[in-house]
Amino acid sequence: MVPDPTAPTVTVPAGSAPSADPTATPLGFGVGARVTASVMADDYARLLVDALARLDLRGLVRETGDVSTYLGGDEEALLGVLTDLGEALARTEHHATLGILLSRGCPGEVVCELPGGAGPRRVELPAPRRTGRYAAAEWSLYPLADQGTAEGTEPDHMRDIYAAIDHARTLGTFRGSEHFATRLEGDLGDVLATAVAGWTMVGRSVQHVTSHLTISLNSPSHPVREPAAEGGAR
Amino acid sequence: MVPDPTAPTVTVPAGSAPSADPTATPLGFGVGARVTASVMADDYARLLVDALARLDLRGLVRETGDVSTYLGGDEEALLGVLTDLGEALARTEHHATLGILLSRGCPGEVVCELPGGAGPRRVELPAPRRTGRYAAAEWSLYPLADQGTAEGTEPDHMRDIYAAIDHARTLGTFRGSEHFATRLEGDLGDVLATAVAGWTMVGRSVQHVTSHLTISLNSPSHPVREPAAEGGAR
Repeated sequence: MVPDPTAPTVTVPAGSAPSADPTATPLGFGVGARVTASVMADDYARLLVDALARLDLRGLVRETGDVSTYLGGDEEALLGVLTDLGEALARTEHHATLGILLSRGCPGEVVCELPGGAGPRRVELPAPRRTGRYAAAEWSLYPLADQGTAEGTEPDHMRDIYAAIDHARTLGTFRGSEHFATRLEGDLGDVLATAVAGWTMVGRSVQHVTSHLTISLNSPSHPVREPAAEGGAR
Repeated sequence: MVPDPTAPTVTVPAGSAPSADPTATPLGFGVGARVTASVMADDYARLLVDALARLDLRGLVRETGDVSTYLGGDEEALLGVLTDLGEALARTEHHATLGILLSRGCPGEVVCELPGGAGPRRVELPAPRRTGRYAAAEWSLYPLADQGTAEGTEPDHMRDIYAAIDHARTLGTFRGSEHFATRLEGDLGDVLATAVAGWTMVGRSVQHVTSHLTISLNSPSHPVREPAAEGGAR
Protein backbone atom coordinates (compact mmCIF):
# COMPACT_ATOMS: atom_id res chain seq x y z
CA MET A 1 0.00 0.00 0.00
CA VAL A 2 1.01 3.62 -0.41
CA PRO A 3 2.55 5.07 2.75
CA ASP A 4 0.34 7.67 4.39
CA PRO A 5 2.26 10.96 4.66
CA THR A 6 0.35 11.80 7.86
CA ALA A 7 1.47 8.59 9.55
CA PRO A 8 3.70 8.97 12.60
CA THR A 9 7.41 8.52 12.21
CA VAL A 10 8.43 4.93 12.62
CA THR A 11 11.16 4.34 15.15
CA VAL A 12 13.57 1.52 14.51
CA PRO A 13 14.08 -0.71 17.55
CA ALA A 14 17.61 -1.54 18.54
CA GLY A 15 18.78 -4.79 17.05
CA SER A 16 16.69 -4.52 13.94
CA ALA A 17 19.62 -3.98 11.63
CA PRO A 18 19.13 -5.58 8.23
CA SER A 19 19.58 -9.33 8.39
CA ALA A 20 19.31 -12.14 5.90
CA ASP A 21 16.58 -13.63 8.08
CA PRO A 22 14.46 -11.12 10.00
CA THR A 23 12.92 -13.91 12.07
CA ALA A 24 16.31 -14.74 13.59
CA THR A 25 16.52 -11.52 15.59
CA PRO A 26 13.85 -11.12 18.27
CA LEU A 27 14.05 -7.33 18.25
CA GLY A 28 14.19 -7.17 14.47
CA PHE A 29 11.07 -9.32 14.32
CA GLY A 30 9.36 -7.17 16.98
CA VAL A 31 9.16 -9.84 19.69
CA GLY A 32 8.24 -8.13 22.93
CA ALA A 33 5.73 -7.20 25.60
CA ARG A 34 4.16 -4.20 27.26
CA VAL A 35 3.43 -4.70 30.97
CA THR A 36 1.28 -2.66 33.37
CA ALA A 37 1.66 -3.68 37.02
CA SER A 38 -0.80 -2.35 39.62
CA VAL A 39 -0.50 -2.96 43.36
CA MET A 40 -3.49 -2.09 45.55
CA ALA A 41 -1.48 -0.48 48.35
CA ASP A 42 -0.73 3.04 49.56
CA ASP A 43 3.01 2.35 49.17
CA TYR A 44 2.60 0.90 45.67
CA ALA A 45 5.47 3.01 44.33
CA ARG A 46 8.04 1.52 46.70
CA LEU A 47 6.68 -2.00 46.14
CA LEU A 48 6.86 -1.65 42.35
CA VAL A 49 10.31 -0.10 42.38
CA ASP A 50 11.54 -2.93 44.61
CA ALA A 51 10.01 -5.60 42.36
CA LEU A 52 11.39 -4.03 39.19
CA ALA A 53 14.86 -3.41 40.65
CA ARG A 54 15.35 -7.10 41.44
CA LEU A 55 14.50 -8.30 37.94
CA ASP A 56 17.22 -10.00 35.96
CA LEU A 57 16.57 -8.61 32.49
CA ARG A 58 18.93 -11.14 30.85
CA GLY A 59 19.55 -9.17 27.69
CA LEU A 60 16.02 -7.83 27.27
CA VAL A 61 15.54 -4.24 26.17
CA ARG A 62 13.47 -2.23 28.64
CA GLU A 63 11.75 1.16 28.22
CA THR A 64 9.77 2.39 31.19
CA GLY A 65 6.68 4.52 30.68
CA ASP A 66 3.88 5.97 32.76
CA VAL A 67 1.28 3.57 31.33
CA SER A 68 3.37 0.46 30.80
CA THR A 69 6.89 -0.88 30.52
CA TYR A 70 8.12 -2.20 27.19
CA LEU A 71 10.29 -5.33 27.19
CA GLY A 72 11.85 -6.55 23.96
CA GLY A 73 13.67 -9.83 23.43
CA ASP A 74 13.23 -13.52 22.84
CA GLU A 75 10.24 -15.54 24.00
CA GLU A 76 12.06 -17.52 26.71
CA ALA A 77 13.60 -14.41 28.27
CA LEU A 78 10.24 -12.64 28.19
CA LEU A 79 8.47 -15.51 29.96
CA GLY A 80 11.28 -15.64 32.52
CA VAL A 81 11.10 -11.97 33.45
CA LEU A 82 7.29 -11.90 33.42
CA THR A 83 7.27 -14.85 35.82
CA ASP A 84 9.81 -13.16 38.08
CA LEU A 85 7.85 -9.90 38.07
CA GLY A 86 4.52 -11.62 38.76
CA GLU A 87 6.04 -13.64 41.59
CA ALA A 88 7.55 -10.50 43.13
CA LEU A 89 4.15 -8.79 43.00
CA ALA A 90 2.41 -11.83 44.49
CA ARG A 91 4.94 -11.96 47.33
CA THR A 92 3.98 -8.44 48.42
CA GLU A 93 0.76 -10.22 49.58
CA HIS A 94 -1.20 -7.22 48.33
CA HIS A 95 -3.92 -7.60 45.73
CA ALA A 96 -2.28 -6.83 42.38
CA THR A 97 -3.12 -6.91 38.68
CA LEU A 98 -0.80 -7.42 35.76
CA GLY A 99 -1.82 -6.36 32.26
CA ILE A 100 0.36 -7.84 29.53
CA LEU A 101 0.41 -7.30 25.77
CA LEU A 102 2.58 -9.70 23.74
CA SER A 103 3.41 -8.93 20.12
CA ARG A 104 5.48 -10.49 17.33
CA GLY A 105 5.93 -10.00 13.60
CA CYS A 106 5.19 -6.29 13.38
CA PRO A 107 8.09 -4.16 14.62
CA GLY A 108 7.76 -0.44 14.05
CA GLU A 109 4.47 0.22 15.83
CA VAL A 110 1.73 1.69 13.63
CA VAL A 111 3.53 0.92 10.38
CA CYS A 112 5.01 -2.56 10.27
CA GLU A 113 8.63 -2.51 9.21
CA LEU A 114 8.47 -6.05 7.94
CA PRO A 115 6.46 -6.86 4.84
CA GLY A 116 4.26 -9.93 4.73
CA GLY A 117 6.31 -13.03 4.15
CA ALA A 118 9.19 -11.93 6.39
CA GLY A 119 7.96 -14.51 8.89
CA PRO A 120 6.71 -16.54 10.56
CA ARG A 121 9.30 -17.06 13.30
CA ARG A 122 9.42 -20.61 14.65
CA VAL A 123 10.85 -21.18 18.12
CA GLU A 124 10.48 -23.75 20.87
CA LEU A 125 7.74 -23.15 23.44
CA PRO A 126 9.38 -21.76 26.58
CA ALA A 127 8.85 -23.93 29.66
CA PRO A 128 6.98 -22.64 32.72
CA ARG A 129 8.67 -22.00 36.03
CA ARG A 130 6.33 -22.83 38.93
CA THR A 131 6.06 -20.11 41.57
CA GLY A 132 3.72 -21.61 44.17
CA ARG A 133 1.43 -18.59 43.69
CA TYR A 134 -2.16 -18.80 42.45
CA ALA A 135 -3.26 -16.60 39.55
CA ALA A 136 -6.59 -16.09 37.78
CA ALA A 137 -6.43 -14.55 34.32
CA GLU A 138 -8.32 -13.61 31.18
CA TRP A 139 -6.59 -14.19 27.89
CA SER A 140 -7.13 -13.06 24.30
CA LEU A 141 -5.07 -14.19 21.30
CA TYR A 142 -5.09 -12.48 17.91
CA PRO A 143 -3.55 -13.91 14.74
CA LEU A 144 -3.57 -10.79 12.52
CA ALA A 145 -4.14 -10.71 8.80
CA ASP A 146 -2.19 -7.60 7.87
CA GLN A 147 1.11 -9.40 7.36
CA GLY A 148 -0.36 -12.74 6.39
CA THR A 149 -0.02 -12.50 2.66
CA ALA A 150 2.75 -15.00 2.01
CA GLU A 151 2.17 -18.68 1.40
CA GLY A 152 1.39 -20.49 4.63
CA THR A 153 1.11 -17.38 6.76
CA GLU A 154 -2.63 -16.75 6.45
CA PRO A 155 -4.21 -16.55 9.89
CA ASP A 156 -7.00 -19.01 10.61
CA HIS A 157 -8.33 -17.59 13.84
CA MET A 158 -10.33 -20.59 14.94
CA ARG A 159 -7.68 -23.17 14.00
CA ASP A 160 -5.06 -21.20 15.88
CA ILE A 161 -7.24 -20.51 18.91
CA TYR A 162 -8.17 -24.21 19.18
CA ALA A 163 -4.51 -25.23 19.10
CA ALA A 164 -3.67 -22.70 21.81
CA ILE A 165 -6.59 -23.83 23.98
CA ASP A 166 -5.57 -27.46 23.58
CA HIS A 167 -2.16 -26.47 24.86
CA ALA A 168 -3.76 -24.63 27.81
CA ARG A 169 -5.60 -27.87 28.67
CA THR A 170 -2.28 -29.71 28.57
CA LEU A 171 -0.79 -27.18 30.98
CA GLY A 172 -3.87 -27.54 33.19
CA THR A 173 -4.71 -23.83 33.18
CA PHE A 174 -7.78 -23.76 30.93
CA ARG A 175 -10.96 -22.98 32.88
CA GLY A 176 -13.44 -22.03 30.19
CA SER A 177 -14.66 -19.15 28.13
CA GLU A 178 -15.84 -15.74 29.21
CA HIS A 179 -17.26 -13.14 26.89
CA PHE A 180 -14.35 -12.17 24.59
CA ALA A 181 -11.67 -13.99 26.61
CA THR A 182 -10.47 -17.37 27.84
CA ARG A 183 -10.25 -17.88 31.58
CA LEU A 184 -7.01 -19.34 32.92
CA GLU A 185 -6.24 -20.37 36.50
CA GLY A 186 -3.43 -22.10 38.28
CA ASP A 187 0.15 -21.51 39.26
CA LEU A 188 1.16 -18.04 38.09
CA GLY A 189 4.08 -19.55 36.16
CA ASP A 190 1.79 -21.93 34.29
CA VAL A 191 -0.73 -19.18 33.50
CA LEU A 192 2.00 -16.97 32.04
CA ALA A 193 3.50 -19.90 30.14
CA THR A 194 0.09 -20.70 28.65
CA ALA A 195 -0.23 -17.24 27.15
CA VAL A 196 3.37 -17.11 25.92
CA ALA A 197 3.10 -20.63 24.47
CA GLY A 198 -0.19 -19.91 22.67
CA TRP A 199 1.26 -16.76 21.17
CA THR A 200 4.46 -18.61 20.18
CA MET A 201 2.53 -21.58 18.72
CA VAL A 202 0.30 -19.40 16.56
CA GLY A 203 3.45 -17.51 15.58
CA ARG A 204 4.75 -20.67 13.91
CA SER A 205 2.22 -20.23 11.12
CA VAL A 206 1.25 -16.54 11.27
CA GLN A 207 3.67 -13.63 11.10
CA HIS A 208 1.87 -10.99 13.17
CA VAL A 209 0.35 -12.30 16.41
CA THR A 210 -0.64 -10.34 19.50
CA SER A 211 -2.00 -11.58 22.82
CA HIS A 212 -3.44 -9.78 25.84
CA LEU A 213 -3.43 -11.25 29.33
CA THR A 214 -4.95 -9.72 32.48
CA ILE A 215 -3.79 -11.43 35.67
CA SER A 216 -5.29 -11.06 39.14
CA LEU A 217 -3.08 -11.91 42.15
CA ASN A 218 -4.01 -12.15 45.84
CA SER A 219 -7.64 -11.25 45.21
CA PRO A 220 -9.84 -11.49 48.31
CA SER A 221 -12.25 -13.50 46.16
CA HIS A 222 -9.63 -16.09 45.26
CA PRO A 223 -9.62 -19.46 47.01
CA VAL A 224 -7.74 -19.47 50.31
CA ARG A 225 -4.23 -20.71 49.63
CA GLU A 226 -2.76 -23.60 51.54
CA PRO A 227 0.80 -22.63 52.51
CA ALA A 228 1.96 -26.26 52.49
CA ALA A 229 0.61 -26.97 49.02
CA GLU A 230 1.51 -23.54 47.79
CA GLY A 231 5.22 -23.88 48.28
CA GLY A 232 5.50 -27.47 47.14
CA ALA A 233 6.06 -28.98 43.75
CA ARG A 234 3.04 -30.37 41.99
CA MET B 1 -15.13 -25.56 9.58
CA VAL B 2 -15.98 -28.68 11.53
CA PRO B 3 -16.80 -27.95 15.18
CA ASP B 4 -14.19 -29.27 17.56
CA PRO B 5 -15.81 -31.68 20.05
CA THR B 6 -13.29 -30.62 22.70
CA ALA B 7 -14.27 -26.97 22.39
CA PRO B 8 -15.85 -25.38 25.44
CA THR B 9 -19.59 -25.03 25.59
CA VAL B 10 -20.72 -21.79 24.07
CA THR B 11 -22.97 -19.73 26.28
CA VAL B 12 -25.65 -17.66 24.60
CA PRO B 13 -25.72 -14.08 25.87
CA ALA B 14 -29.05 -12.65 26.88
CA GLY B 15 -30.69 -10.75 24.06
CA SER B 16 -29.20 -12.85 21.31
CA ALA B 17 -32.52 -14.41 20.34
CA PRO B 18 -32.81 -15.03 16.61
CA SER B 19 -33.38 -11.80 14.71
CA ALA B 20 -33.77 -10.91 11.09
CA ASP B 21 -30.76 -8.60 11.48
CA PRO B 22 -28.17 -9.70 14.04
CA THR B 23 -26.44 -6.32 13.82
CA ALA B 24 -29.53 -4.58 15.22
CA THR B 25 -29.16 -6.08 18.70
CA PRO B 26 -26.01 -5.05 20.57
CA LEU B 27 -25.99 -8.18 22.73
CA GLY B 28 -26.82 -10.44 19.81
CA PHE B 29 -23.92 -8.93 17.89
CA GLY B 30 -21.62 -9.29 20.90
CA VAL B 31 -21.05 -5.58 21.54
CA GLY B 32 -19.45 -5.20 24.93
CA ALA B 33 -16.44 -4.60 27.13
CA ARG B 34 -14.38 -6.23 29.85
CA VAL B 35 -13.00 -3.77 32.41
CA THR B 36 -10.31 -4.21 35.08
CA ALA B 37 -10.05 -1.30 37.51
CA SER B 38 -7.06 -1.07 39.88
CA VAL B 39 -6.69 1.57 42.59
CA MET B 40 -3.29 1.91 44.28
CA ALA B 41 -4.62 2.28 47.82
CA ASP B 42 -4.93 0.11 50.91
CA ASP B 43 -8.70 0.68 50.93
CA TYR B 44 -9.06 -0.12 47.22
CA ALA B 45 -11.99 -2.45 47.88
CA ARG B 46 -14.15 0.28 49.42
CA LEU B 47 -13.14 2.77 46.72
CA LEU B 48 -14.00 0.36 43.92
CA VAL B 49 -17.30 -0.70 45.47
CA ASP B 50 -18.25 2.97 45.90
CA ALA B 51 -17.32 3.80 42.30
CA LEU B 52 -19.20 0.81 40.91
CA ALA B 53 -22.28 1.33 43.07
CA ARG B 54 -22.83 4.84 41.74
CA LEU B 55 -22.75 3.80 38.07
CA ASP B 56 -25.90 4.23 36.03
CA LEU B 57 -25.83 1.11 33.92
CA ARG B 58 -28.60 2.40 31.63
CA GLY B 59 -29.70 -0.97 30.32
CA LEU B 60 -26.24 -2.52 30.08
CA VAL B 61 -25.76 -6.13 31.11
CA ARG B 62 -23.13 -6.51 33.85
CA GLU B 63 -21.35 -9.63 35.09
CA THR B 64 -18.75 -9.08 37.81
CA GLY B 65 -15.70 -11.33 38.00
CA ASP B 66 -12.46 -11.51 39.96
CA VAL B 67 -10.34 -10.51 36.96
CA SER B 68 -12.67 -8.11 35.17
CA THR B 69 -16.26 -6.96 34.88
CA TYR B 70 -18.17 -7.69 31.68
CA LEU B 71 -20.47 -4.98 30.33
CA GLY B 72 -22.71 -5.70 27.34
CA GLY B 73 -24.78 -3.20 25.41
CA ASP B 74 -24.68 -0.51 22.76
CA GLU B 75 -21.64 1.63 21.98
CA GLU B 76 -23.04 4.89 23.39
CA ALA B 77 -24.06 3.31 26.69
CA LEU B 78 -20.67 1.61 26.98
CA LEU B 79 -18.78 4.87 26.45
CA GLY B 80 -21.05 6.58 28.97
CA VAL B 81 -20.48 4.09 31.74
CA LEU B 82 -16.73 3.77 31.04
CA THR B 83 -16.43 7.55 31.30
CA ASP B 84 -18.41 7.60 34.55
CA LEU B 85 -16.29 4.80 36.01
CA GLY B 86 -13.01 6.40 34.96
CA GLU B 87 -14.07 9.75 36.39
CA ALA B 88 -15.07 8.13 39.68
CA LEU B 89 -11.66 6.44 39.90
CA ALA B 90 -9.85 9.68 39.05
CA ARG B 91 -11.78 11.54 41.73
CA THR B 92 -10.43 9.21 44.41
CA GLU B 93 -7.17 11.12 43.74
CA HIS B 94 -5.30 7.83 44.05
CA HIS B 95 -3.17 6.51 41.23
CA ALA B 96 -5.36 4.08 39.28
CA THR B 97 -5.25 2.01 36.11
CA LEU B 98 -8.12 0.93 33.92
CA GLY B 99 -7.71 -1.99 31.51
CA ILE B 100 -10.46 -2.17 28.90
CA LEU B 101 -11.19 -4.75 26.19
CA LEU B 102 -13.83 -3.79 23.62
CA SER B 103 -15.30 -6.42 21.30
CA ARG B 104 -17.95 -6.58 18.55
CA GLY B 105 -19.07 -9.07 15.94
CA CYS B 106 -18.15 -12.30 17.71
CA PRO B 107 -20.63 -13.19 20.46
CA GLY B 108 -20.15 -16.58 22.05
CA GLU B 109 -16.55 -16.30 23.21
CA VAL B 110 -14.22 -18.93 21.76
CA VAL B 111 -16.64 -20.03 19.06
CA CYS B 112 -18.32 -17.13 17.29
CA GLU B 113 -22.07 -17.56 17.15
CA LEU B 114 -22.38 -15.37 14.10
CA PRO B 115 -21.04 -16.57 10.77
CA GLY B 116 -19.09 -14.22 8.54
CA GLY B 117 -21.40 -11.87 6.71
CA ALA B 118 -23.73 -11.36 9.69
CA GLY B 119 -22.21 -7.90 10.02
CA PRO B 120 -20.79 -5.34 9.97
CA ARG B 121 -22.86 -3.23 12.36
CA ARG B 122 -22.91 0.47 11.46
CA VAL B 123 -23.68 2.98 14.20
CA GLU B 124 -22.95 6.64 14.88
CA LEU B 125 -19.74 7.42 16.76
CA PRO B 126 -20.67 8.15 20.37
CA ALA B 127 -19.70 11.65 21.53
CA PRO B 128 -17.19 12.21 24.35
CA ARG B 129 -18.18 13.65 27.70
CA ARG B 130 -15.39 15.83 29.11
CA THR B 131 -14.47 15.06 32.71
CA GLY B 132 -11.77 17.62 33.52
CA ARG B 133 -9.43 14.74 34.40
CA TYR B 134 -6.18 13.98 32.60
CA ALA B 135 -5.52 10.48 31.30
CA ALA B 136 -2.57 8.85 29.55
CA ALA B 137 -3.29 5.64 27.66
CA GLU B 138 -1.98 2.98 25.31
CA TRP B 139 -4.33 1.72 22.67
CA SER B 140 -4.42 -1.28 20.32
CA LEU B 141 -7.07 -1.92 17.66
CA TYR B 142 -7.59 -5.25 15.92
CA PRO B 143 -9.78 -5.77 12.85
CA LEU B 144 -9.99 -9.59 12.82
CA ALA B 145 -10.14 -11.77 9.76
CA ASP B 146 -12.02 -14.75 11.14
CA GLN B 147 -15.48 -13.35 10.35
CA GLY B 148 -14.42 -11.24 7.41
CA THR B 149 -15.50 -13.51 4.63
CA ALA B 150 -18.47 -11.62 3.22
CA GLU B 151 -18.19 -8.97 0.52
CA GLY B 152 -16.90 -5.71 1.92
CA THR B 153 -16.05 -7.08 5.36
CA GLU B 154 -12.41 -8.03 4.75
CA PRO B 155 -10.20 -6.34 7.33
CA ASP B 156 -7.49 -4.09 6.00
CA HIS B 157 -5.46 -3.53 9.13
CA MET B 158 -3.47 -0.55 7.94
CA ARG B 159 -6.42 1.20 6.24
CA ASP B 160 -8.52 0.78 9.36
CA ILE B 161 -5.77 1.81 11.77
CA TYR B 162 -5.02 4.94 9.72
CA ALA B 163 -8.69 5.94 9.78
CA ALA B 164 -8.84 5.45 13.54
CA ILE B 165 -5.64 7.43 14.09
CA ASP B 166 -6.92 10.26 11.92
CA HIS B 167 -9.97 10.36 14.16
CA ALA B 168 -7.72 10.42 17.25
CA ARG B 169 -5.95 13.45 15.75
CA THR B 170 -9.34 15.12 15.27
CA LEU B 171 -10.19 14.49 18.90
CA GLY B 172 -6.77 15.84 19.91
CA THR B 173 -5.75 12.74 21.84
CA PHE B 174 -3.14 11.23 19.49
CA ARG B 175 0.38 11.51 20.90
CA GLY B 176 2.35 9.05 18.81
CA SER B 177 3.34 5.45 18.54
CA GLU B 178 4.89 3.17 21.10
CA HIS B 179 6.00 -0.36 20.43
CA PHE B 180 2.76 -2.29 19.69
CA ALA B 181 0.42 0.51 20.78
CA THR B 182 -0.72 4.05 20.09
CA ARG B 183 -0.26 6.61 22.85
CA LEU B 184 -3.27 8.77 23.72
CA GLU B 185 -3.40 11.67 26.16
CA GLY B 186 -5.92 14.28 27.16
CA ASP B 187 -9.20 14.55 28.95
CA LEU B 188 -10.22 11.09 30.15
CA GLY B 189 -13.54 11.43 28.31
CA ASP B 190 -11.79 12.19 25.02
CA VAL B 191 -9.32 9.34 25.48
CA LEU B 192 -12.13 6.84 26.06
CA ALA B 193 -14.14 8.28 23.17
CA THR B 194 -11.12 7.90 20.87
CA ALA B 195 -10.89 4.17 21.56
CA VAL B 196 -14.64 3.59 21.33
CA ALA B 197 -14.85 5.65 18.13
CA GLY B 198 -11.94 3.85 16.48
CA TRP B 199 -13.47 0.50 17.32
CA THR B 200 -16.89 1.64 16.09
CA MET B 201 -15.44 3.14 12.86
CA VAL B 202 -13.54 0.00 11.94
CA GLY B 203 -16.70 -1.91 12.83
CA ARG B 204 -18.49 -0.19 9.95
CA SER B 205 -16.50 -2.26 7.47
CA VAL B 206 -15.30 -5.27 9.49
CA GLN B 207 -17.54 -7.62 11.46
CA HIS B 208 -15.22 -8.75 14.27
CA VAL B 209 -13.20 -5.93 15.85
CA THR B 210 -11.53 -5.84 19.25
CA SER B 211 -9.63 -3.04 20.94
CA HIS B 212 -7.54 -2.89 24.11
CA LEU B 213 -6.97 0.30 26.09
CA THR B 214 -4.81 0.72 29.20
CA ILE B 215 -5.43 4.00 31.01
CA SER B 216 -3.28 5.57 33.72
CA LEU B 217 -4.92 8.09 36.08
CA ASN B 218 -3.32 10.33 38.72
CA SER B 219 0.17 9.00 38.04
CA PRO B 220 2.89 10.82 39.96
CA SER B 221 4.75 11.11 36.65
CA HIS B 222 1.86 12.88 34.96
CA PRO B 223 2.01 16.65 34.44
CA VAL B 224 0.81 18.64 37.44
CA ARG B 225 -2.82 19.44 36.85
CA GLU B 226 -4.06 23.01 36.99
CA PRO B 227 -7.29 22.97 38.97
CA ALA B 228 -8.67 26.01 37.12
CA ALA B 229 -8.03 24.54 33.69
CA GLU B 230 -8.95 21.08 34.82
CA GLY B 231 -12.53 21.88 35.69
CA GLY B 232 -13.19 24.22 32.80
CA ALA B 233 -14.38 23.60 29.30
CA ARG B 234 -11.78 23.61 26.57
